Amino acid sequence: MSEFDLIRRHLTGLGAGRDDVLLDVGDDCAVLHVPAGRELAVGIDTLVAGVHFLPDCDPAALGWKALAVNLSDLAAVGAEPAWATLAITLPDADEAWLAAFARGFGELAAAEDVRLVGGDVTRGPLTVTVQAHGLVPSEHMLRRSGARPSDLICVSGAIGDAGLALKHLLAGEPVDDYLRRRLERPTPRVALGEVLRDLATSAIDLSDGLLADLGHVLAASGCAARVELERLPLADQVAAAVAEHGDWSLPLSSGDDYELCFTLPRTAAGQLPVLAAAAGCPLTTIGEIEAGSGLRCVRADGSVWTGPDQGYDHFS
Amino acid sequence: MSEFDLIRRHLTGLGAGRDDVLLDVGDDCAVLHVPAGRELAVGIDTLVAGVHFLPDCDPAALGWKALAVNLSDLAAVGAEPAWATLAITLPDADEAWLAAFARGFGELAAAEDVRLVGGDVTRGPLTVTVQAHGLVPSEHMLRRSGARPSDLICVSGAIGDAGLALKHLLAGEPVDDYLRRRLERPTPRVALGEVLRDLATSAIDLSDGLLADLGHVLAASGCAARVELERLPLADQVAAAVAEHGDWSLPLSSGDDYELCFTLPRTAAGQLPVLAAAAGCPLTTIGEIEAGSGLRCVRADGSVWTGPDQGYDHFS
Repeated sequence: MSEFDLIRRHLTGLGAGRDDVLLDVGDDCAVLHVPAGRELAVGIDTLVAGVHFLPDCDPAALGWKALAVNLSDLAAVGAEPAWATLAITLPDADEAWLAAFARGFGELAAAEDVRLVGGDVTRGPLTVTVQAHGLVPSEHMLRRSGARPSDLICVSGAIGDAGLALKHLLAGEPVDDYLRRRLERPTPRVALGEVLRDLATSAIDLSDGLLADLGHVLAASGCAARVELERLPLADQVAAAVAEHGDWSLPLSSGDDYELCFTLPRTAAGQLPVLAAAAGCPLTTIGEIEAGSGLRCVRADGSVWTGPDQGYDHFS
Repeated sequence: MSEFDLIRRHLTGLGAGRDDVLLDVGDDCAVLHVPAGRELAVGIDTLVAGVHFLPDCDPAALGWKALAVNLSDLAAVGAEPAWATLAITLPDADEAWLAAFARGFGELAAAEDVRLVGGDVTRGPLTVTVQAHGLVPSEHMLRRSGARPSDLICVSGAIGDAGLALKHLLAGEPVDDYLRRRLERPTPRVALGEVLRDLATSAIDLSDGLLADLGHVLAASGCAARVELERLPLADQVAAAVAEHGDWSLPLSSGDDYELCFTLPRTAAGQLPVLAAAAGCPLTTIGEIEAGSGLRCVRADGSVWTGPDQGYDHFS
């Protein structure tokens, strides 16, 4: 099975049919139509075996996740997903592996109306790079830089699930289905990004942990934040893990949540239930933007929690 | 030096300044403006250490080449380069290496008016994935599928140089400056792609060797071809290597030429010198498209040469 055959068999026709693809997988380039009044949003992410995923992980789950983390970046700027490209490096031409990977990737691509328009398959250590392309109405994109003092800080879904699942996996402990799914098949909050476009003052997706990612928003916006720990949206398992040692690092600093963290003007607080319904996920207010700099995590009794670390950094 | 610092220090602001970049490196996504009347061309390519380049190669040359091979794909559809994203996996945070890589990448990016709009730096085995974005006037893109019987087959520049340089390198033999530059710093034929838009019936860039790549054009166009070996444009060193053993595989089947191979209606033959002047590179007619299927390489005496292989394939 040659490189060309592998691409043709598994990566051609993957995802949704779209009438804005003028040249598809198989030519030198894809050629794509961006409609008037829309800007192109582009994000790229690499997953490396042994760093971002366990080398023996389910390839279908990996295919899903490789696309999901990129759609999550699109959601953070309020873009609607449209097209993706995939560069995959494999130690050998394992067709069953690639077929399963393509199945997982294709499932999410079909669900989110994304077309795979380009693929490169090479021999080498297992790594997966996906680039996702989305469309966002001109002048309506979400940014990291718009948070202002008194804005509410909100997050979607629940945080810390993927971190707890990974902790169990690495310890060789059983992982329940909910946590495993949250680690392996995260749901990019695409619909939420779209409904936040004209309301949120800033947004970011949570890939490196709440503290690190909210820190990027504060740096870009020139603000401080106060996060109220007891308001963090936690699944029972995560809440129990936090309670066991009084250690909040799991929801604050473990990565791979792929929830959105965004800021809302206080006057828009009443719209949260409507936004949650439109986005199809819970939304929780966890704190407030303040003037100054820095990020304080406070307990219900007002005491400040000083965590052990600041999120996942590949080279620290 | 953290991942964020590495990205900020070396990958921010790389390449040309462009007024069509609405969000740059550093946000979740880049946001880019595609003007009316233009389509978006997208190509992606991965280079893996030990497969596509020697692990101890000059990082500045690698930076140049990683972008060049992608701009070559854009040239093949007639697109003008605009933006690029870069996903780089490094065994460790070697700042000097990354700085040199960025310098080589940035040199070509500045020369071709390309802006680096997104970067992901991760820890892992050395691989480099670049995605290049270009713009092509609607309805004027070049394709692989338009070649017709009696069309002339043409190539730019010279072929086999990179293959010969690599052969010398792998044998531990000296490599002259011309050949080394052709291997390490290929010139993407961007200007040629643009002038071919309304003339060529098909085009492809030569990355896997003339026989393999012209084969893709024939398959997509449903035609056959006759290539006249003595007309192939060869540097003296390559011509000497061919003459030594009477083996044409070097110019026919070694990869990494990054020249364009295109087909022209016979009536446009007289325009080749004008096109060559506009594109700034030699253009040579090497054969003719015929009805049927298959690809014949004929010597000046009319005898057919049957080569030992069919181009570079990562998994064969």
